[in-house]
Amino acid sequence: MLKKDWYLKPLAVAVTTVALGIAVAHAEHPDDEAVLGYQGAPSAVDPDSARIVHTPGAPDLTEEEFERAKEIYFQRCAGCHGVLRKGATGKPLTTDITQQRGLEYLKVFINYGSPAGMPNWGTSGDFTEEEVELMAKYIMHEPPQPPEFGMPEMMDTWEVFVAPEDRPSEQMNDLDLDNLFSVTLRDAGQIALIDGESKEIVKVLDTGYAVHISRISASGRYLFVIGRDAKIDMIDLWMEDPEIVSTVKIGMEARSVETSKYEGYEDQIAIAGAYWPPQYVLMDGETLEPRKIMSTRGMTVDTQEFHPEPRVAAIVSSHQHPEFIVNIKETGKVQLVNYENLDAVSLVEIDTSRFLHDGGWDASGRYFLTAANESNQIVVIDALERELESIIDVGGIPHPGRGANFVDPDFGPVWATSHLGDASISLIGTDPEGHPDSAWEVVRTLEGQGGGSLFIKTHPESENLWVDTTFNPNEALSQSVAVFDLNDLEAGYEVLPIAEWADVGEGPKRVVQPEYNAAGDEVWFSVWNTMDEVSAIVVVDDNTRELKHVIKDERLVTPTGKFNVLNTQQDIY
Amino acid sequence: MLKKDWYLKPLAVAVTTVALGIAVAHAEHPDDEAVLGYQGAPSAVDPDSARIVHTPGAPDLTEEEFERAKEIYFQRCAGCHGVLRKGATGKPLTTDITQQRGLEYLKVFINYGSPAGMPNWGTSGDFTEEEVELMAKYIMHEPPQPPEFGMPEMMDTWEVFVAPEDRPSEQMNDLDLDNLFSVTLRDAGQIALIDGESKEIVKVLDTGYAVHISRISASGRYLFVIGRDAKIDMIDLWMEDPEIVSTVKIGMEARSVETSKYEGYEDQIAIAGAYWPPQYVLMDGETLEPRKIMSTRGMTVDTQEFHPEPRVAAIVSSHQHPEFIVNIKETGKVQLVNYENLDAVSLVEIDTSRFLHDGGWDASGRYFLTAANESNQIVVIDALERELESIIDVGGIPHPGRGANFVDPDFGPVWATSHLGDASISLIGTDPEGHPDSAWEVVRTLEGQGGGSLFIKTHPESENLWVDTTFNPNEALSQSVAVFDLNDLEAGYEVLPIAEWADVGEGPKRVVQPEYNAAGDEVWFSVWNTMDEVSAIVVVDDNTRELKHVIKDERLVTPTGKFNVLNTQQDIY
Repeated sequence: MLKKDWYLKPLAVAVTTVALGIAVAHAEHPDDEAVLGYQGAPSAVDPDSARIVHTPGAPDLTEEEFERAKEIYFQRCAGCHGVLRKGATGKPLTTDITQQRGLEYLKVFINYGSPAGMPNWGTSGDFTEEEVELMAKYIMHEPPQPPEFGMPEMMDTWEVFVAPEDRPSEQMNDLDLDNLFSVTLRDAGQIALIDGESKEIVKVLDTGYAVHISRISASGRYLFVIGRDAKIDMIDLWMEDPEIVSTVKIGMEARSVETSKYEGYEDQIAIAGAYWPPQYVLMDGETLEPRKIMSTRGMTVDTQEFHPEPRVAAIVSSHQHPEFIVNIKETGKVQLVNYENLDAVSLVEIDTSRFLHDGGWDASGRYFLTAANESNQIVVIDALERELESIIDVGGIPHPGRGANFVDPDFGPVWATSHLGDASISLIGTDPEGHPDSAWEVVRTLEGQGGGSLFIKTHPESENLWVDTTFNPNEALSQSVAVFDLNDLEAGYEVLPIAEWADVGEGPKRVVQPEYNAAGDEVWFSVWNTMDEVSAIVVVDDNTRELKHVIKDERLVTPTGKFNVLNTQQDIY
Repeated sequence: MLKKDWYLKPLAVAVTTVALGIAVAHAEHPDDEAVLGYQGAPSAVDPDSARIVHTPGAPDLTEEEFERAKEIYFQRCAGCHGVLRKGATGKPLTTDITQQRGLEYLKVFINYGSPAGMPNWGTSGDFTEEEVELMAKYIMHEPPQPPEFGMPEMMDTWEVFVAPEDRPSEQMNDLDLDNLFSVTLRDAGQIALIDGESKEIVKVLDTGYAVHISRISASGRYLFVIGRDAKIDMIDLWMEDPEIVSTVKIGMEARSVETSKYEGYEDQIAIAGAYWPPQYVLMDGETLEPRKIMSTRGMTVDTQEFHPEPRVAAIVSSHQHPEFIVNIKETGKVQLVNYENLDAVSLVEIDTSRFLHDGGWDASGRYFLTAANESNQIVVIDALERELESIIDVGGIPHPGRGANFVDPDFGPVWATSHLGDASISLIGTDPEGHPDSAWEVVRTLEGQGGGSLFIKTHPESENLWVDTTFNPNEALSQSVAVFDLNDLEAGYEVLPIAEWADVGEGPKRVVQPEYNAAGDEVWFSVWNTMDEVSAIVVVDDNTRELKHVIKDERLVTPTGKFNVLNTQQDIY
């Protein structure tokens, strides 16, 4: 099911035709690092089928193995380590490092992972033993550099299936849209629309691969999903039978999509950020027509050195100005991009900290709190004044998703993050007017089950705080969830055995991403298994913390992110 | 005298050690273009001294020849054609084009130039016959890519010789600073300070190579010069003996420097723009300490494709806001860069036209008029409203310098440009309030001597309009200047034989850049000869158009740009 729609050319390839098999091709690239070399093998077999990829210092791979590893790397590794392997959430994997570590070390690390956030790809069952070895060898070779993807390429992929004038002017179906969930079916390259009341799958739609997030337009009508392959699909939920009304691909790899929510600009402009090429694009909000591409290549915030791959992480839509707030990961800069005039884009580029990743609004909608994950910090942007409000030290590799807003009994309004790198949960005061002493301080640190957390969640109607530990190498942790009582935070957490409740049989069955229904009285969890095992969604009663329902369906292949329409539309988290 | 302080690494180098001289190294780079290959020669001599640079489709060069050609290319060719040879003012010189044209064609073009603006490097005496052939061969090879130059590299080059607190608080010398000229001694890597009254050289200072421009701080105290080698020197004119008080190098190649002139920010911030790497840097206005580097790599304005080398051309300091206005050549974008907060830089990026080059203010100081040279257009930026005011079609390859402001008898205030690509002079109405029918229209086109013009100049106190034709292949034109009567523009021009008046003997003796004295009653011209010939500055009486004085001095080596302090400080042109 892996889509193979991008062709990566190697950085430099030395092709040597050797008559007698006695010459040795030896190549150096500009940084004195080794270069890929496709060599004709010195045998009598068809040279095409026997081509091997040779990099000095790395074990040879066949071209076929190299291509397969390249795809696995893109799907599983590039997200944290970068296409050019310069490192971000994951460590750098440049060949000076990987070759020094050596094959056996790399195999162990890939197989078992680390408590600091590296998934245990082998012992989880995601990779076979042979794939672990392949990937260890692969990362000892130079990374191939993908091509650019500018306006000509985007226009080639842009399609409008139903023009705006042919769409309904009111909702034509009976769905309870507020309580609809858009669920990523990761490895199927699909999303499922699930009715919150009946828990039935309303529809499955083919989308990009591994949809990273779903976002809802200001009107609540349009659902935007973006695959890791940078394909955006825009679904009109008002149609009698909701379907994809337009699509565009904005690069080779991407994570973020958002739509304009500022008063007067509702549904008008969409934006998506790419990991490769490092850029974002402003689009027509009703058709996805790409209008303006902005490159993010530039200087890092601290050393002010040029970075060739500053990827676009979280994007949120400001409620304070007609602007998008764009996290640029590797350079550690937050751009406030005004969308009033796309022929003269004005922006404020705020220096913050590396590497920016995910984040969300405080309860007031004025402050954007976002993780600088390798700096172990949370950056606070004042969207009203367009300035940096604070940078706060938290635990190891914060990964809040959009975070969790609630009122701490002692310190007033707080926003909380869990961490990939340790078990802590950091609560940050977010009310400089009402609680100035607590503002932009870690007012409380809770101890959760362990590291490897991806998401933390509560709801204005709830008294629970849920924390997953999806990427913890310990199965007991990755298959369960911790829940705290907002009224008695120091009392510790209760552990709910979500995967066990799902009763799906074998597999890694990681528990990921608590998501509330519209009323805030149910929490949904994905039990994310491999493609050939059974996955499920487990619905928990938020009041009793008891199992309410398990959604199992043969169409529910590798579910991960779930996005309730109302909560997503209104930034409730 | 060519400074050799940058080391260009080739894009990719295949090194093949061949035992018997029978194997052929064949390399391909990602774009399927040929790659440099340093090959050990199959002879018995010392392999190091015999290394040759081989590119398929290009004549072999020795490594020594390649290095020499690389330097000549940097000094003479990169300015118009680009370091990566993607083209701008000059045509693209990528190997698909140069190899198709072939060696003989290239030699002829380099030797004789073209009326469209290519200098006649051979017949002018700038290149020897052997150098013409070397350069023709060189451009058939792949261009080597220079390294990045970020903050660590800049800090290594930054020096403060006299700290601000150790500088005088008032002018300590007797110089008439308003009428001082800063004169580029191009190939000497120096500037000369020349007293406007006595015409004596006050001082010669060692600077970067081929100083492109001089700029004066708002106070009139600090003189900034920038070499093509991207070295900035800041001279304190108030010291008893004016000298360089600080220096920094901001890249490998550069053209533009400017200082903050907005009220309240006088002398506080400096900016310089680089050709390579494609970036600009904001600095402390009193010490040149580099504070913030901004990369310009991004999307072209028309096709929205990524460009790897968008060079920074003209920069002016806004009088309307605390901003610099930055021309980004290859992408065709004008950035209005606010310098109030360097930790959160706000900017407006205005889409205009390719390729942006030089330009200047209208007489009111509200509108910035700048050449989009390969589009044959003048772009008008409204610095007050921070928006595009107009784009106006003019003649072939406009090259205004800063242009010339005067009042047309019929159409009111105009700004004029001459052209590299044809003989025309375009007059553009600049007074939308007083003369709305003429505003942003070419109200009059004059016919000058010919193409190859670099500068046009007048002065508020003058009734003359001077137009040089420095790069015209016809010696009669490149060695003389045309002058129009502002009161009778249609009467045609008078030709003054400036080079003949200089009486410097042999050499190309190009006449370049009219520059007024502070009073506006003298015009100074450089008679720019090669290093081994005699150069001069010819001073003409602006009222009588007669020779007033010839400055000859053995220190006056290859003079080009001349900058009167008062006119430069106050943007009078």
